Amino acid sequence: MQVVEYRPEPGQYAWTFGGVAPTHRISPGTCLRLWTEDAFSGRLTRTTDRPSDVLNMAEVNPQTGPFFVEGAEPGDTLALHIVDLTPARDWGASTLIPFFGGLSVTDRTALLHDPLPERTWIYQLDRAAGTVLFEAQSTEMRLELPCNPMLGTVGVAPPGREVRSSLVPDVFGGNMDTPEMKPGATCYLQVNVDGALFSVGDGHYRQGEGESCGTAVEGAMDVVLLVELIKASPENPAPAWPRIESDTHYTVVGSSRPLEDAWRASQIGMIAWLGELYGLDRLDAYQLLTQISESPLANVVDTNYSAVTKVAKGLLPAGAAYGGVHRHLREQSRSL
Amino acid sequence: MQVVEYRPEPGQYAWTFGGVAPTHRISPGTCLRLWTEDAFSGRLTRTTDRPSDVLNMAEVNPQTGPFFVEGAEPGDTLALHIVDLTPARDWGASTLIPFFGGLSVTDRTALLHDPLPERTWIYQLDRAAGTVLFEAQSTEMRLELPCNPMLGTVGVAPPGREVRSSLVPDVFGGNMDTPEMKPGATCYLQVNVDGALFSVGDGHYRQGEGESCGTAVEGAMDVVLLVELIKASPENPAPAWPRIESDTHYTVVGSSRPLEDAWRASQIGMIAWLGELYGLDRLDAYQLLTQISESPLANVVDTNYSAVTKVAKGLLPAGAAYGGVHRHLREQSRSL
Amino acid sequence: MQVVEYRPEPGQYAWTFGGVAPTHRISPGTCLRLWTEDAFSGRLTRTTDRPSDVLNMAEVNPQTGPFFVEGAEPGDTLALHIVDLTPARDWGASTLIPFFGGLSVTDRTALLHDPLPERTWIYQLDRAAGTVLFEAQSTEMRLELPCNPMLGTVGVAPPGREVRSSLVPDVFGGNMDTPEMKPGATCYLQVNVDGALFSVGDGHYRQGEGESCGTAVEGAMDVVLLVELIKASPENPAPAWPRIESDTHYTVVGSSRPLEDAWRASQIGMIAWLGELYGLDRLDAYQLLTQISESPLANVVDTNYSAVTKVAKGLLPAGAAYGGVHRHLREQSRSL
Amino acid sequence: MQVVEYRPEPGQYAWTFGGVAPTHRISPGTCLRLWTEDAFSGRLTRTTDRPSDVLNMAEVNPQTGPFFVEGAEPGDTLALHIVDLTPARDWGASTLIPFFGGLSVTDRTALLHDPLPERTWIYQLDRAAGTVLFEAQSTEMRLELPCNPMLGTVGVAPPGREVRSSLVPDVFGGNMDTPEMKPGATCYLQVNVDGALFSVGDGHYRQGEGESCGTAVEGAMDVVLLVELIKASPENPAPAWPRIESDTHYTVVGSSRPLEDAWRASQIGMIAWLGELYGLDRLDAYQLLTQISESPLANVVDTNYSAVTKVAKGLLPAGAAYGGVHRHLREQSRSL
Repeated sequence: MQVVEYRPEPGQYAWTFGGVAPTHRISPGTCLRLWTEDAFSGRLTRTTDRPSDVLNMAEVNPQTGPFFVEGAEPGDTLALHIVDLTPARDWGASTLIPFFGGLSVTDRTALLHDPLPERTWIYQLDRAAGTVLFEAQSTEMRLELPCNPMLGTVGVAPPGREVRSSLVPDVFGGNMDTPEMKPGATCYLQVNVDGALFSVGDGHYRQGEGESCGTAVEGAMDVVLLVELIKASPENPAPAWPRIESDTHYTVVGSSRPLEDAWRASQIGMIAWLGELYGLDRLDAYQLLTQISESPLANVVDTNYSAVTKVAKGLLPAGAAYGGVHRHLREQSRSL
Repeated sequence: MQVVEYRPEPGQYAWTFGGVAPTHRISPGTCLRLWTEDAFSGRLTRTTDRPSDVLNMAEVNPQTGPFFVEGAEPGDTLALHIVDLTPARDWGASTLIPFFGGLSVTDRTALLHDPLPERTWIYQLDRAAGTVLFEAQSTEMRLELPCNPMLGTVGVAPPGREVRSSLVPDVFGGNMDTPEMKPGATCYLQVNVDGALFSVGDGHYRQGEGESCGTAVEGAMDVVLLVELIKASPENPAPAWPRIESDTHYTVVGSSRPLEDAWRASQIGMIAWLGELYGLDRLDAYQLLTQISESPLANVVDTNYSAVTKVAKGLLPAGAAYGGVHRHLREQSRSL
Repeated sequence: MQVVEYRPEPGQYAWTFGGVAPTHRISPGTCLRLWTEDAFSGRLTRTTDRPSDVLNMAEVNPQTGPFFVEGAEPGDTLALHIVDLTPARDWGASTLIPFFGGLSVTDRTALLHDPLPERTWIYQLDRAAGTVLFEAQSTEMRLELPCNPMLGTVGVAPPGREVRSSLVPDVFGGNMDTPEMKPGATCYLQVNVDGALFSVGDGHYRQGEGESCGTAVEGAMDVVLLVELIKASPENPAPAWPRIESDTHYTVVGSSRPLEDAWRASQIGMIAWLGELYGLDRLDAYQLLTQISESPLANVVDTNYSAVTKVAKGLLPAGAAYGGVHRHLREQSRSL
Repeated sequence: MQVVEYRPEPGQYAWTFGGVAPTHRISPGTCLRLWTEDAFSGRLTRTTDRPSDVLNMAEVNPQTGPFFVEGAEPGDTLALHIVDLTPARDWGASTLIPFFGGLSVTDRTALLHDPLPERTWIYQLDRAAGTVLFEAQSTEMRLELPCNPMLGTVGVAPPGREVRSSLVPDVFGGNMDTPEMKPGATCYLQVNVDGALFSVGDGHYRQGEGESCGTAVEGAMDVVLLVELIKASPENPAPAWPRIESDTHYTVVGSSRPLEDAWRASQIGMIAWLGELYGLDRLDAYQLLTQISESPLANVVDTNYSAVTKVAKGLLPAGAAYGGVHRHLREQSRSL
């Protein structure tokens, strides 16, 4: 197995999906050992740091990549298996950015209120305990919370000649901010341009569903990925919306506004997937999904909101999505 | 403990929250043993039944109640503890109702398409195995799914002189359709009128998050409830939105449209609750919630959509909401 | 022609659609000469009045009525022709109510911001000039604006046993807050209960489209109405959503959230009306509407938002909606 | 005055805002005489043409340009004055594109319905009468409708390194599809990149407010524009959202989803403009706008919906936006 290690220098980050030359050309089957900078580009380090002072909003969500996958053509499916996510620093940061967040006035939910106050929280990581420490500023509350690393941002170059900010989630993946993007997960994305040109970033040491204030426990991350390519075929049509497979669940992520449209997209995506896996027609799949869907929101803060539709494999007959590539990647990952 | 048993006759159902005389006057501390008819008023019994033929849309979601709680006044908090939910029939039904459902044209998401085809599914209950059987109509798929009884509808009379259909979820509870409303849960609702005038109905033997097609595995239910009243006080302000407490989670349900507003209401409700429990200011509570919120959707099909914000007690310091009434009711329920 | 004059005493207002006994029983063909109190129930009279001090939010939007129309049955269409609206006071008031308004945090668009400041404006009426005077408080700006009286609220009792606050617009009309509800307009509403039980209120001396801050130039009004009844028949199906006919336009008002759903409802309503008037199928009507629709928003502030779809009669072939009842009422009104 | 004439060859269109090299470099003060192809790239010519057969969805909304404006820098304001729009063909076309349109299932409002039927309408232009002819296909109805040429698409390169499809409206203008973009209008757009890189296209011979089915009377257009540049200064901050000035109105266009957010953006934009013009604080401007706002929707069909807030100059004191550049351009246009 080919292994590529890459820690970008400050000038090497990508800030968009599409529109950037690849940093590497890799073959399907490659293992990537990557370093990702945090969403704040490392500029937020103390509770006294105010976002409006220290952040450069044109340089948030730095991406490691993009990677050109040899042989990837539009209509193919890229499979990215997350082998491991390990915090690369001993602390993470979260903050309130003016006019950003699910419970804040924004440039779109444009109301006449002043922005909320700025406040920054630093979470110390306890590697032995596997926790991050929440420290309230209005009380003495200190809470050890499990460290559950995930990637906020996994995406390919968009279709239709577009170039999108790394803050955007959409059909090309991107800034979906779902806790489902965690070690052991395989993410399937439709390839829109030759080489797919995927990148990753925005590691979170922990995030709740919805990412309410807009910033998780943001932290630099050591990322291990396996890359596979599923060529287009009648049995393996590329997914319209990002899919995630784990040992226990099938998941589809829809991203749009209003939130019900994001949810609808994820539901339609799952109905399609159940049809592919089991031959159910759309009405039977709709009915089954009605009784078994899990719907943990991803984010209600980004340019598009992201909603998740998830079904437990344990409730379903055995299936082998994309010829069983998840299981294969899972086995490979164990040998690393 | 006073125990009231009640199985309404066909003519005794309520079809609204508010606007109906109580069937019983009960004291706080009463145990209710109730029977609830299914959402279809029992009219859908075979896979060949078409909703447009057999349903009377003016008589869906029949309510058992309302109950007048002695001493309940506006501003108080009603606590309803669900001791037990047992399917009262050996089968449940689900169906596609024309112009209803999350992935269907409706009277509000009013598009020019013809309605989706009608189709009805009957789920046989296996009491020993604790499962309901999904039987596909387009394939041979048969799936045993866990039976997880819940109540779709728990509500009090609305504020502001309104009378709302039993299909509506809002600040008064009502047709929230959340799987969180299950045995072991205590639901807290603000009292809006003297006596609270609560009712329950719409039992589901199983439902996924979102209730995609609009109808769960609908079934008649034997319901055991404990009723408590928390008088208004500075320490115990009534909740703006319905709250649910279980042994493991605090939950708030927001209901509105678009879906992000339902979610926002549930989040603001939880921030208020975290403030009450731990003295956190709104910014600390916002931050903490960002990292620990669970957000399993309730329904994206009803007059208002319902979103859930949920936090695991295991992540939080010990707390005693409403003076520990949940634990007290839980203990009482074990003695029944 | 029977003429009924009525100025309700303070204790005689209705605060809801439905749920209230009629103040009068009238026959179709009756002329009503009514007085309506302003939306604030007359409690806001000076710029120093703060809504949170002087308003009783349980008593806003007082309704004059309801009126029981003899012979009106569910499925019929009530026609209310607005003959005249004359300001009943020499001033109107507008204000910023905490947590209310299109550019404010509300209980639904629930964000963490403090409420906007309260401020009240009083508009002096110049009857001779036909203007109301805007007086800025931050500058010396004084603007004479045309006085364009309209009724914010025209509605019948709702379907489905519901009782709705007079703040709500929906299929039953209600608090639509559209400037189209002005002298010369005929409003068509589906009858949901015997007698229709309609009421009117919430006079505005002037309002912009959208009613941004939530309160127009609110003022007591002398109202002259003609009441007609169109019995249900295949040629005259009752409208699903409120319709308004003037000498120059056909208009449909949809009310829902999000705003696109309100607009969709109004569009579907107009496509239905174009079909009734001209026999166009839904695709031709959709196409024609695409090129001729006017869409002045009504309100983006109420419980449901209201969107208007309007077409100029001048662009269309001659037609006679509901057997030409509008022309008939218009002629009658001239003889008053 | 420098005059540039340009009719792009088929290979010279731009399909995006941003990401394309300029076809011309021009100085402020230049007059452009342009030809724009229709939104269908001229591929839809007969009522028997079905979009799914003849359209290439990767090549719709062809743009003429982009133009590099000498001296334009980020933060400046580009002023584009529309001198004249003359239909360049004797017919226009409109059609129903599968899974597109305001009353259709789409990839975002993703429901389970089959697409609506495809149907194409061709409108013959009568230059003498100034009309286009609607010909129904389900009846004999033929309607002469006024020809009111407008540009669906006027935009600059987006901020934040993005490249957006020419189907998108947003802060950079783009596919706003508002009938306000007509001869006599001056459009103000914030410059995001050196040279502004603006382009125009998507001529409509006529369009209703909302553009219900998604396609207006689409036609090739002869376009005459005057280009000006307003350098950034404290008195002339660049507008956050596109502004349009005509002899009679000030207009702001907001684009987002859900539709209420598009409207909110346009309202906040107008409140800012009223503040700039008259020194009103935000609360006075909010109040004034509440009483004078006109809100004709632009589109409820594109990637973002576009809402318009418009105020009549006749209701306001005299003002001179951007130093009176509109009047200046208007006078210049008369001398052409």
